[in-house]
Amino acid sequence: MTERVATMGPATTRRPVLRIEGSQADWIIDEVVTELPLTLIVNGIEVATLVTTPSDLEDLVYGFLVSEQVVPSPESILSVAFDAEGQAARVEARAAVEDAGARMFQRRYVTSCCGKGRASIYFESDAAALRPVQGGEAVTARTALELLIRLQQRSDIFRRTGGVHNVALADAGGDVLAVRADIGRHNALDKLYGHCLRQNIATSDLMAVLSGRISSEILLKAAKLGLPIVLSKSAPTELALALAEDIGITVIGFARQGRLNVYTHPERVVV
Amino acid sequence: MTERVATMGPATTRRPVLRIEGSQADWIIDEVVTELPLTLIVNGIEVATLVTTPSDLEDLVYGFLVSEQVVPSPESILSVAFDAEGQAARVEARAAVEDAGARMFQRRYVTSCCGKGRASIYFESDAAALRPVQGGEAVTARTALELLIRLQQRSDIFRRTGGVHNVALADAGGDVLAVRADIGRHNALDKLYGHCLRQNIATSDLMAVLSGRISSEILLKAAKLGLPIVLSKSAPTELALALAEDIGITVIGFARQGRLNVYTHPERVVV
Repeated sequence: MTERVATMGPATTRRPVLRIEGSQADWIIDEVVTELPLTLIVNGIEVATLVTTPSDLEDLVYGFLVSEQVVPSPESILSVAFDAEGQAARVEARAAVEDAGARMFQRRYVTSCCGKGRASIYFESDAAALRPVQGGEAVTARTALELLIRLQQRSDIFRRTGGVHNVALADAGGDVLAVRADIGRHNALDKLYGHCLRQNIATSDLMAVLSGRISSEILLKAAKLGLPIVLSKSAPTELALALAEDIGITVIGFARQGRLNVYTHPERVVV
Repeated sequence: MTERVATMGPATTRRPVLRIEGSQADWIIDEVVTELPLTLIVNGIEVATLVTTPSDLEDLVYGFLVSEQVVPSPESILSVAFDAEGQAARVEARAAVEDAGARMFQRRYVTSCCGKGRASIYFESDAAALRPVQGGEAVTARTALELLIRLQQRSDIFRRTGGVHNVALADAGGDVLAVRADIGRHNALDKLYGHCLRQNIATSDLMAVLSGRISSEILLKAAKLGLPIVLSKSAPTELALALAEDIGITVIGFARQGRLNVYTHPERVVV
């Protein structure tokens, strides 16, 4: 009934759909975005299963393993092999953290309450990994708004299927270095990070540009990548802002229709 | 710098924001949606930490524990107590599953590939819990479209802060039984389920109405609640549709501007 379409971009599937409009009902062929559960197996040990859009999977593997500190650096990844169905990635690595599976569990499900300051809640194993973000070029409000318009224009797959998040890495001059799409925003950020790691692109002067909400988990991921600016068309949450203030990240939200809100560290935004 | 506003609905925080429009930059007070990491402790054992919007938390606790089968029924929950900061819920329960913490871990991170049929990928501990959804009243396309318009109208908090998902439970006649808001769509569904459990409302003839994407995880949650119809303004994913076909759930997506797509089990939709 369904037919898998191989594409260079995010894979979609065509399938019959009953479209109803008024008193009219027609079977049409529609495109639907695919989801793939990808299990990461590092040195024979299952580390995590990511539900992802099946594109740029090697970037995803690199970005996830380094940002989640399963491996200390991209150089410690010796090989990545995908099984025939694309549902598992087998990674050989030097110096992989042995208890990575257990740490992933901790990361999601054990929360430590440090009880100090406004951003008193961190995820325990993340807290140790976070370094203050310093420096980073300032962006003009105009460039920020233009970047979001360009992200929208490049989001072909979104227009076609309405099912994925697009995240771009851009510099303060307004150049877009890469765009990655995924049904999970974390995954899109990991794909971008993996791309940078593999191409030797420094992230310390770049910004994340996304259309969706800036949650605490997105902010944590941006912090791990060392991105000084996070820019979105949508709203941030309070916890994301508290984290951003403490870590030193500039959060720009609601950037649309010619205006934007600077929530934290406005020194990186030029009117 | 920030001030917590107690509301009956989802809590928001007011904070200073630099709004830039053209060459104008003004500090304004803006409302931001809050996120709360809520740790569930059942009979002294940490089961999960949910990042949630702090409203209807008792509904959330009931809905989560029953739908994730940490407890067999709402009656087995003897008491729910929240700590002063609202960051932990201590639950006393009869017959709670003892290895609930480990099971939660499994649910997210261990994926079993059954390898049969199109929807060959299920989360292992979920697969056992899923029963086919049968029956359920048919809905007219017109009612479906009206429900989404009404969900939008009732989404005050979304209009104010742009940070939460609203999910409604409605019947085929177009009556909205309850609306819950959360930054996580799963949580919104669990809050609705908890409400039904505590008020003794049967879910087997109801539908979930949401504005966001229908992912496989949303579909699984709807299946656990026994909802025969899932209706959204946005797109479903392929894996969600494969699951829906197998389990017997009608998926209606892209319901907007007078038209909608019926992806699975169209017998529950009347033109």
